[in-house]
Amino acid sequence: MRKIAIVFLFIYSIAPAQNSDSLTVNAIAKEILQHGEAYKNLEYLCKKIGPRLSGSANAQKAVEATFNMLKAAGADTVYLQSCMVPHWVRGAKEIANIQWLNNKKSLHVCALGGSVATAANGIKAPVIEIKSFEELAAMSEENIKGKIIFYNYPMKTELVHGGYGDAVWYRWNGPVMAAQKGAVAIMIRSVTYALDDHPHTGATHYVDTVKKIPAIACSTKDAEWLSDLLKKEKHVELFIKTNCETLPDVQSFNVVGEIRGTENKDEIITCGGHLDSWDLAEGAHDDGTGCMQSIEVIRALKATGIKPKRSIRAVMFMNEENGLRGALKYAEAATAKNEKQLFAIESDEGGFGCTSIGLDGTPTQEAKLRSWMYLFKPYGALDMPDGGGGADIGSLKKMGTMMSSINPNSQRYFDHHHSALDVFESVNKRELELGAVNMAAMVWLVSEYGMH
Amino acid sequence: MRKIAIVFLFIYSIAPAQNSDSLTVNAIAKEILQHGEAYKNLEYLCKKIGPRLSGSANAQKAVEATFNMLKAAGADTVYLQSCMVPHWVRGAKEIANIQWLNNKKSLHVCALGGSVATAANGIKAPVIEIKSFEELAAMSEENIKGKIIFYNYPMKTELVHGGYGDAVWYRWNGPVMAAQKGAVAIMIRSVTYALDDHPHTGATHYVDTVKKIPAIACSTKDAEWLSDLLKKEKHVELFIKTNCETLPDVQSFNVVGEIRGTENKDEIITCGGHLDSWDLAEGAHDDGTGCMQSIEVIRALKATGIKPKRSIRAVMFMNEENGLRGALKYAEAATAKNEKQLFAIESDEGGFGCTSIGLDGTPTQEAKLRSWMYLFKPYGALDMPDGGGGADIGSLKKMGTMMSSINPNSQRYFDHHHSALDVFESVNKRELELGAVNMAAMVWLVSEYGMH
Repeated sequence: MRKIAIVFLFIYSIAPAQNSDSLTVNAIAKEILQHGEAYKNLEYLCKKIGPRLSGSANAQKAVEATFNMLKAAGADTVYLQSCMVPHWVRGAKEIANIQWLNNKKSLHVCALGGSVATAANGIKAPVIEIKSFEELAAMSEENIKGKIIFYNYPMKTELVHGGYGDAVWYRWNGPVMAAQKGAVAIMIRSVTYALDDHPHTGATHYVDTVKKIPAIACSTKDAEWLSDLLKKEKHVELFIKTNCETLPDVQSFNVVGEIRGTENKDEIITCGGHLDSWDLAEGAHDDGTGCMQSIEVIRALKATGIKPKRSIRAVMFMNEENGLRGALKYAEAATAKNEKQLFAIESDEGGFGCTSIGLDGTPTQEAKLRSWMYLFKPYGALDMPDGGGGADIGSLKKMGTMMSSINPNSQRYFDHHHSALDVFESVNKRELELGAVNMAAMVWLVSEYGMH
Repeated sequence: MRKIAIVFLFIYSIAPAQNSDSLTVNAIAKEILQHGEAYKNLEYLCKKIGPRLSGSANAQKAVEATFNMLKAAGADTVYLQSCMVPHWVRGAKEIANIQWLNNKKSLHVCALGGSVATAANGIKAPVIEIKSFEELAAMSEENIKGKIIFYNYPMKTELVHGGYGDAVWYRWNGPVMAAQKGAVAIMIRSVTYALDDHPHTGATHYVDTVKKIPAIACSTKDAEWLSDLLKKEKHVELFIKTNCETLPDVQSFNVVGEIRGTENKDEIITCGGHLDSWDLAEGAHDDGTGCMQSIEVIRALKATGIKPKRSIRAVMFMNEENGLRGALKYAEAATAKNEKQLFAIESDEGGFGCTSIGLDGTPTQEAKLRSWMYLFKPYGALDMPDGGGGADIGSLKKMGTMMSSINPNSQRYFDHHHSALDVFESVNKRELELGAVNMAAMVWLVSEYGMH
């Protein structure tokens, strides 16, 4: 592309309409794009702290670091909100290998979050490939008993947005469904479109009435390889050794930074992301970016001298990945204080370029927000589709809070998600900042005009 | 992000409305997302061929390769369209270093495309930093004469889309403006937001009435470093040695693949990208992706058995980067044959996730296309803003052709653009394919319903 003359035309054609709202949104955008701190803060969170699974020492460091970031951003008040969180630990790195005839091959694996460990000497059993829960349901217990189930369910390429939600059921329900038929362990294909050697973790679960069996994920390349092997060989065994453990709950915290409104200060607008991450990753896109964008909202409003009429909170929610305890605590405290939780917006789909803002409110509320669409288009959010919110703000919905979300172009997201590839280097500074611009613009507009 | 239940809702909420058009668009999308060849073809173009500047042996290989790809895609006819192209060569790798007191430091540089070479023993002169053309204009010839001008104009971070168009003037006009005041060479700061060690090339130009002086780009990190040095040191010299040369024009080709329409076969719809790339890069995003997407349009329509009513052409334009000769030839041939060039769509802003489709037609035409907006939203194009087209299809405009473009989220684009970082690995398969989906959907809709 050369774009000598063409681009010049483009600059002017996207220049925001010049009214007072667009000037304010533009001032916010300029502040973030010229002087943004989100990228630098994210580097600190990822590189100086790193993985921060709930209950870990790093999670506590992240609490302290974001407390300080919110102070530095100029929040009127910054405080911690205590909650007890689960404390699952991986222990020593997992081992898994495939054994057939006189051959043995190591796999790239990780225990799923919440999994129980194998016995100290591991577990070895014949492995059966299962393509779907329907296939499993059709098999007799006799054929499953004592075996390890290998769920090889790839994300469906034809689903533009829903591939993860479709495939993740095997991670979540896989152990229970297999154990009900007598399986002794399970291994899933990592939930990602990428074909590589990185295993992706994420939460699984058990139910009290069914035996808890160890659950791991293998890389997608290993899944393809094993599937090929199983087409050729009848007697294939999988050896697994995991060392994970669920320890007693630990005290942890949400971190909250607030700007007090100048007029309707009792009406609260919440923006947030989650501070915990899986232990394999730096938690850059999941969800360091959402946290840093939320802090940037506070910083940009303070730095531009804008005084919101309603109160604004940036919340670093703790324990989204394996418990949601922080989210529940935030909603519980808001309910106990009978807070007017007007509006909540979450960023937890990765720090890629924001393309739309999801809405979940009454038709009147949604119509009001959509009338502001022109204010967002210059900054990349081109639509306000139905459906907003997220796991952390979800508990506010029963208080009548309007829900919203920053929706990035997330085709790359699952390449990184819950794996060692979710690192700072995979985040683009300007994409991160434009997410913060759109979040800050929406938060400011709601603070200015309310929800009615 | 865990997204167990939430995502499921989302799948259904974005399911396309079920009418005959949406079913056809969905069939095209499924074909591309499940069986797409664009990514594999791009890998071939980037890794088996690589850089393919006009006039080079690689450019010819790319002509032959895409000819074969269009054949394999099932085009009814594939043909070459001959044109003469400029043949600029870089020669041996450039050298530049900064000398001050008893110190010397090498810079990461490259000659700008079209630049003349230095003398065989290079050129050494005092270097002056210039922040803008305004600053240059205010300086006396006496202060410029015999010096090397270092244009240190960064892309403006506050411009969401127009930063390149704003900054690239220094690359394009820098040598002429400096030579008019007696400078002996120029060096620009690379036109990118990234702060790294990679120089970015791109076309510069001369005018006959002004002395042609050598022009190079340095990396952004080197630009920052030099700017700091010049604040501290008065006597700083820059040594440059470049070896580039403009050889006689060479015969080259556009590559055209066509599906003949079943009803109005004289009405032609053109989709395309440019096949040439700068010599430092694999030309992945610029513009291998646009070419591979255009071939994929042909392949997907053939593979799904859809029979377009109007004729569709995928065009690999030659020489966009430093001459536009292919584009001019295509328009010239179309004019000579008095073709009905109904509609043309170009993809030349990188193979990132498509977020909108730009339109440039009559109000009636644009309204017609915008009535199809709902058909695109499930595949990521959320808007149809004013302003479409591109350098290669631009020459068709005077024939009354409606212009359009695939607009990706391109914040990352200039990190790669015209540098050694524009490689296959920086392209995401699904982002590439979704661009092809949107292009194919638009091409099919226009083929079905025409422009009136």
